Amino acid sequence: MSHTALVIVTGPAADNATPGAPAPGFHLADPDLPQLRVTDLAASRGDGVFESISVIDGHPHALEAHLNRLAQSAAILDLPRPGLPVWEAAILRVVEELDPTREASLRAVYSRGIEGGSTPTGWVYGAPSPDYSAVRSAGVGVVLLDRGYRHDIQHTAPWLLAGAKTLSYAVNRAALREANRRGADDVIFVSADGYILEGATSSVLFMVAGRLLTPGTAETTGIGILEGTTQGDVFRWAEENNLSPTTVMATPDDLRGSDAAWLVSSSRHAVPIRSIDGQPHPLDAGITSAINSYLAGRTS
Amino acid sequence: MSHTALVIVTGPAADNATPGAPAPGFHLADPDLPQLRVTDLAASRGDGVFESISVIDGHPHALEAHLNRLAQSAAILDLPRPGLPVWEAAILRVVEELDPTREASLRAVYSRGIEGGSTPTGWVYGAPSPDYSAVRSAGVGVVLLDRGYRHDIQHTAPWLLAGAKTLSYAVNRAALREANRRGADDVIFVSADGYILEGATSSVLFMVAGRLLTPGTAETTGIGILEGTTQGDVFRWAEENNLSPTTVMATPDDLRGSDAAWLVSSSRHAVPIRSIDGQPHPLDAGITSAINSYLAGRTS
Repeated sequence: MSHTALVIVTGPAADNATPGAPAPGFHLADPDLPQLRVTDLAASRGDGVFESISVIDGHPHALEAHLNRLAQSAAILDLPRPGLPVWEAAILRVVEELDPTREASLRAVYSRGIEGGSTPTGWVYGAPSPDYSAVRSAGVGVVLLDRGYRHDIQHTAPWLLAGAKTLSYAVNRAALREANRRGADDVIFVSADGYILEGATSSVLFMVAGRLLTPGTAETTGIGILEGTTQGDVFRWAEENNLSPTTVMATPDDLRGSDAAWLVSSSRHAVPIRSIDGQPHPLDAGITSAINSYLAGRTS
Repeated sequence: MSHTALVIVTGPAADNATPGAPAPGFHLADPDLPQLRVTDLAASRGDGVFESISVIDGHPHALEAHLNRLAQSAAILDLPRPGLPVWEAAILRVVEELDPTREASLRAVYSRGIEGGSTPTGWVYGAPSPDYSAVRSAGVGVVLLDRGYRHDIQHTAPWLLAGAKTLSYAVNRAALREANRRGADDVIFVSADGYILEGATSSVLFMVAGRLLTPGTAETTGIGILEGTTQGDVFRWAEENNLSPTTVMATPDDLRGSDAAWLVSSSRHAVPIRSIDGQPHPLDAGITSAINSYLAGRTS
């Protein structure tokens, strides 16, 4: 069992599966050796999409939701439709290589490919996760930062790619550095017109009067953010537990006035928010622990 | 003389030059072989900066301006200060490898490096340019597309990285696809509050009553766009030719009412705009040709 694992997806697009052609496939590769050309548009233009998938006890979580979102992101970027069975097999192959006793995180990357070519590239990389147990109970301090876009930008300017999980994440990483400069751990983006959006790599959930709320996406509230796969699972849990999961357009004041709030994501699961712009925010240890038990116990 | 050339910059940051350490350097590599790891943040997060530099008759153009802008972009992204002498030497080494009888374009890429590490990576890739002579006289049709941000976003939300030439260019490429869908060749971005910004990979210049105008940047008009290296050179030419080069805050109506307009960039030089959103725009063949002669003849 190696520490990290890499599979190169040699046939990442659905249309690679032309009749008579060899089956599109994948192969193991050494993650510590160079595997990409400098002219791959992933590296030169951030031109591709990705998914991060958590693996616990050898189970990749929310795999179907991740595959569907990969396809959705690819569609927004006009990438060839990904061949999801190949991606699924590649993901499972990486899982096989990882130590099943450790939480791990996979990253599936689907790039437009070599500049000037017409063949996309793909890979799945897996590595053990850091130990998130402390942050899952102690929580994080967040700052609210302007995302610059109106909440409904996905409808009016789809070329800005809101709602797609692209490789162009320099802004997300710069926002995290800004949060650190302000003494916080993480960020929640706010739209130019004043609505809560999402974290840099997470969805925002909050509890108000016994109801679990989240900003929703283009299909529900019209807000141009990523559909959270983990948020989706937490909403299923909330439904079963009569917490009336609901998508809303929320302002910073709504968030600040909430009874508890979380950032949820594939790798860290639910992390409670313990301060917002330096002001303490209430924690709900019981619900946090219930959500995280549920998320860790998923078998699909 | 090979068709393309690649130099890996093994010591891209200034602080690699620690006393007693081996001099930071670079080495030639095969651009057709994999040279990057999948965990390089250039490929997984678009987390780095770049410059495109044109080479004519063996001269890389505006080299000092490009190196300075690389350093400026790096600073906006909190990357370690690049060691510009090493980058300059690496660029000149790539130029040596290219066919001097053909126009070429170099791309210098400075990435945050391997995830979890603290060492940035860098490379310079060079390839012959397509023949731009037709487009430099016939021009391009452009569409105006919303960039989603207010013009002054660089001042209020620097974490959005306006004014840095980052590897996160998925939006720029999506905007070009949208332009193609609308039957145009290129795009000019407009701020959410209605000001002309820049092209997807170019600056916008236009002539009004004998004056050559451009939107300017954070330092002049407060507009959060990239400082154009080629635009800077054209402004020097305009100064010598009494065309009163001036930075302005311009609206789409100002652009539509101009006597002539251009997209200028390192590789294509000055390309006249022959239509805006499908409406014909006047060309000025004399000025276009004068600008392009000047740009092609630069020896620094």
